[in-house]
Amino acid sequence: MRMVDLIAKTRDHQALTTAELQWLIQNYVADKIPDYQMSAWLMAVYFNGLSDAEQGALAQAMLDSGERLDLTAIPGVKVDKHSTGGVGDKLSIPLVPLVACFGVPVPMVSGRGLGFTGGTLDKLESIPGFNVHLTSAQFIQQVTMIHQAITSASQQLAPADQRLYALRDVTGTVASKPLIASSIMSKKLASGTDALLFDVKSGNGAFMPDDQAAENLAQALLAIAQHAGVKAVAMITDMNQPLGITIGNSLEVAESIALLKGRGPQDVHQLLVAQAAQMLKLGGKTPSLEVAMGMVEDALKDGRAAKAFKQLIQAQGGDPRVVDDPRRLPQATHKVAVKAAASGVVTAMDTKALGTAVMQIGGGRATQSDALDLTAGIVLHKKLGTPVTPGETLAVVYASSVDPARVATQVRDAYTIAAGPIEKPSLIHRILS
Amino acid sequence: MRMVDLIAKTRDHQALTTAELQWLIQNYVADKIPDYQMSAWLMAVYFNGLSDAEQGALAQAMLDSGERLDLTAIPGVKVDKHSTGGVGDKLSIPLVPLVACFGVPVPMVSGRGLGFTGGTLDKLESIPGFNVHLTSAQFIQQVTMIHQAITSASQQLAPADQRLYALRDVTGTVASKPLIASSIMSKKLASGTDALLFDVKSGNGAFMPDDQAAENLAQALLAIAQHAGVKAVAMITDMNQPLGITIGNSLEVAESIALLKGRGPQDVHQLLVAQAAQMLKLGGKTPSLEVAMGMVEDALKDGRAAKAFKQLIQAQGGDPRVVDDPRRLPQATHKVAVKAAASGVVTAMDTKALGTAVMQIGGGRATQSDALDLTAGIVLHKKLGTPVTPGETLAVVYASSVDPARVATQVRDAYTIAAGPIEKPSLIHRILS
Repeated sequence: MRMVDLIAKTRDHQALTTAELQWLIQNYVADKIPDYQMSAWLMAVYFNGLSDAEQGALAQAMLDSGERLDLTAIPGVKVDKHSTGGVGDKLSIPLVPLVACFGVPVPMVSGRGLGFTGGTLDKLESIPGFNVHLTSAQFIQQVTMIHQAITSASQQLAPADQRLYALRDVTGTVASKPLIASSIMSKKLASGTDALLFDVKSGNGAFMPDDQAAENLAQALLAIAQHAGVKAVAMITDMNQPLGITIGNSLEVAESIALLKGRGPQDVHQLLVAQAAQMLKLGGKTPSLEVAMGMVEDALKDGRAAKAFKQLIQAQGGDPRVVDDPRRLPQATHKVAVKAAASGVVTAMDTKALGTAVMQIGGGRATQSDALDLTAGIVLHKKLGTPVTPGETLAVVYASSVDPARVATQVRDAYTIAAGPIEKPSLIHRILS
Repeated sequence: MRMVDLIAKTRDHQALTTAELQWLIQNYVADKIPDYQMSAWLMAVYFNGLSDAEQGALAQAMLDSGERLDLTAIPGVKVDKHSTGGVGDKLSIPLVPLVACFGVPVPMVSGRGLGFTGGTLDKLESIPGFNVHLTSAQFIQQVTMIHQAITSASQQLAPADQRLYALRDVTGTVASKPLIASSIMSKKLASGTDALLFDVKSGNGAFMPDDQAAENLAQALLAIAQHAGVKAVAMITDMNQPLGITIGNSLEVAESIALLKGRGPQDVHQLLVAQAAQMLKLGGKTPSLEVAMGMVEDALKDGRAAKAFKQLIQAQGGDPRVVDDPRRLPQATHKVAVKAAASGVVTAMDTKALGTAVMQIGGGRATQSDALDLTAGIVLHKKLGTPVTPGETLAVVYASSVDPARVATQVRDAYTIAAGPIEKPSLIHRILS
């Protein structure tokens, strides 16, 4: 087998076999295929795509390049969740303890933020002492004991994905549906989960700009999951404004705690309940989503969810007192209020611009090596459909290492204020399984 | 400027500026852009192409990566010729002395064969002593003295092209019209010529399978030539059967000598005359092609062309006696006749298969480092439109290092013998300028 022939096949719309994709990934990881051939192949995939069978085989080959955690000794159906990422999307944080408190094991392998989107691991690190680097043994033991764990992907899990991602990043081949899907799936399958909930974000603050693109990616993820024998459901959810009222690591943990106490913003609360219910159903707790939603509401009201979050924090070395007293989370030393200049209704929000503004004041990374200011972020006082008058606060920007005023104009400009009313976008666009 | 951004522009159908293409080539040659980014860009070019302006700027940037020979001190309009390559295409060899004998300077930078096509330099090396590696000073001096020289491209001429070609060869990005065109032109312009005749081959023994593809490439070549201020004409010529009656290095030199004495096959003779006439016109010898053709016919008849070839051989260290006595060329030690099995008319020839057969018995290279058997080749006794009866010889295969019988079946199978008659393809399909 020669790599140049496999490049030519993909270039000419001929499907690669499972054996060819295995050979390609194995030899790449073994340094027998040079980067310059792999990047040419990646660009050919960018243009021609891959079939469902090829995507599945590629994800499997990437999975096979490393360790796959064996969670079979843990009783119950293991359920994980993946979001394609958006601005203010902190939902993984409350979801894990909320689902785990019903005894459904949640083995979550998560990532860091890059560009305008945040990452679950960065957010969790704003809890003093929280360790996101579990060994495989620690991870398995913790899921066994308290039904939940959140860790970074180690070098042992899908190493092919880590190398390919670094190459895609510098060769203009990131935004390829089959490459995104197989990258996500190789990591998620490596965690040893039995079932998966996908939250595919759609809108001006997501990688997928519209529902059609989001649905295509969701279908690709579901096809790979099916190929791997993993049960899966995908939700297409709205990202035409930030999710919830906070953007920024420490601020989002505080909002997550409020959600776990049943005191989060109404729309985000509903999305949390809907996603937790899907995960309970995937975990075999009940066949009825309605029943599951009732169970979840109860756990949010009676304190079980918040208690499970304390357990998670404690198990991973963090300070669980933040749950009862969120002021123990790192607080910004500077803040600036952004005021409305016009009167009307918020008819549009440039969600990506808000995510980028947070990145620019230290809340996110432009490149993978950037250090973070965990206190930096935005609290949104106004969102889509809200009426505003001149001088009213639209948002408050927080930061400690730089003056938050430097992005004030950018935040103001991210709001479109015009004659209303508008119909508020529904958070859940579609559910696929 | 970042290479990843230039890759993204080409990927997204946005034209690169001249400055961007200059930056790209300069930094690649300076090892500041890694191969893995260049190969991703080449694949993006493969899919999206380049505009005429981009092709011209790319060729210019590749040209600027090295030396450009200064032939301005040599009187007259310098005219070179380029063929895109085919099976049995030896025409450059007789063309150079035939045009030079009228005092039109022909500074030819040529290449070696690869795959199913032969190369002018390999063919010339079957003349004992012939040196194809001239220094720039030797090359310029020889063109000044005898109006003709044929040399390999040195490392100093368009080094970017040599590196890019090696990368394209292993990344599935060879067959890209803008990359082919800018590669050809960077080398040809580096030779310092004032005018160019392009022979773009079309058919089952050429890189361009049909006239449309050939015409697209011809237009690209003409556009780059115009961009560089070089006069040019392109001929689309037939490659649905080998050119002439020989394939193989030494055999093709023998056929070239016959052509220079006016004793070559009729159709190849006519093509030679047509191309030489175009070059004389480009060289400013006469505005009339008809007059030029008459001049050329005279030179072939009265021995001036053959005498000029002797001069060329002598100047480059070869044995000029081969012109009077072609048996001094290397002769094969083995031969085998391939006989027809059926009766009918030759209605099709698999030209590429014949070129590949010659490669397999040592007459060509599968990879650039392969050694050649200069005596290996095929003499065609039957060509398109010829009637055959069972047992008649279709072709004779020659070789010295292996048994030529190993490709006998392949050669026989390259002939389609069916009920005739057929119309013989005309050698010249179209002329563009």
